[in-house]
Amino acid sequence: MPKLILVRHGQSEWNLANRFTGWWDVDLTDKGVEEAKAAGRLLAEKGVLPTCAFTSLQTRAIKTLNLALEECDRLWIPVTRDWHLNERHYGGLTGLNKQETRDRHGDEQVHIWRRSFDVPPPEMEAGSEFDLTGDPRYAGIEVPRTESLKLTIERVLPYWQDHILPVLESGETVIISAHGNSLRALVKHLSDISDDDITGLEIPTGQPIVYDFDAGMQPGERYYLKDS
Amino acid sequence: MPKLILVRHGQSEWNLANRFTGWWDVDLTDKGVEEAKAAGRLLAEKGVLPTCAFTSLQTRAIKTLNLALEECDRLWIPVTRDWHLNERHYGGLTGLNKQETRDRHGDEQVHIWRRSFDVPPPEMEAGSEFDLTGDPRYAGIEVPRTESLKLTIERVLPYWQDHILPVLESGETVIISAHGNSLRALVKHLSDISDDDITGLEIPTGQPIVYDFDAGMQPGERYYLKDS
Repeated sequence: MPKLILVRHGQSEWNLANRFTGWWDVDLTDKGVEEAKAAGRLLAEKGVLPTCAFTSLQTRAIKTLNLALEECDRLWIPVTRDWHLNERHYGGLTGLNKQETRDRHGDEQVHIWRRSFDVPPPEMEAGSEFDLTGDPRYAGIEVPRTESLKLTIERVLPYWQDHILPVLESGETVIISAHGNSLRALVKHLSDISDDDITGLEIPTGQPIVYDFDAGMQPGERYYLKDS
Repeated sequence: MPKLILVRHGQSEWNLANRFTGWWDVDLTDKGVEEAKAAGRLLAEKGVLPTCAFTSLQTRAIKTLNLALEECDRLWIPVTRDWHLNERHYGGLTGLNKQETRDRHGDEQVHIWRRSFDVPPPEMEAGSEFDLTGDPRYAGIEVPRTESLKLTIERVLPYWQDHILPVLESGETVIISAHGNSLRALVKHLSDISDDDITGLEIPTGQPIVYDFDAGMQPGERYYLKDS
């Protein structure tokens, strides 16, 4: 039966520095590397071995995938990288320290930007040091200026429908290594979570989440692989 | 203009142990990891940045690629893994120590197996501990029982023609991370080397080799990136 494994990348340098990251490309910390390896060892221990992988265009997710696949001896499976699985774009908040942003804009405003479903943060200004429109990895792609969770979902779900679901339907065990908000988009869809509730759902780093699908391609309850 | 980069994987555990490896899946040594990273740093320094990658189904080549791409910040490019780029299958010699094999079969016989163009080593026996016919990575693939360099070329070149050359023709900078003999197959073809001469050509580990193609898709002289 088809099986879907979701993994949020291990701790990144900006998770640690408490900065808004979004599409900015930061590396894993040593702790993040260990989280990724532990995820791979868990896959091996539980015998839940991916046969096909998807990830974003961001280093922290790709490295998490590579490290996990190495630990479960699956470096050889096909991997597709696609920007649709990127983290939510944090717009003008990108690069800012979260505490400093609270000090400047107030707790309430920052809470709205982080946790509202459909209010995007201010747009990133053209020419910002965090502007990625000239990055070769996004050649031919219209880089967002900002995204709410709603906007993130609107680009994640069509990719899921068109590219991932057909692979899963063919019986593969698919692993997706991605980000807090691109994974929220999938979990909201698969577990039928409301707009209000999804913004508060935390996806822990490096902790494989599994959905088993039935013959009609209906997902069962999601569970942490560690608890199975 | 299209550019092709060939990289032989860094030192493997069985390079170090002086054992015939072939399709057996061994990891890189610490030295091999460093060679792979150095290759990636050289790509960055020279500004020769791959836009598309191919590798084998073998861990040592995939890891070499991943490490090199990380060093030049290109983990996000598309990567295709395919068994056609695997190392030559060493048949019944797989796993044997090269010196022990010389002691048993004589220097001359081992030299023939290693260096003749079209004499394959003895076939691997079914049930050998090194038999990979049941390995899930080769599901649906007829794993060879042994290969000469000639037989290796006969599976590498059609893959080159059908899958890699069209990508190169579209203007990409393609990197291939592979093995001594699968890369010999490509170098023989691209540099028009005779059957007799190719068996003696050594491809150094972790050392990027470059071909620049002209508008008619004719490759120029090959060169080491470090010398450019």
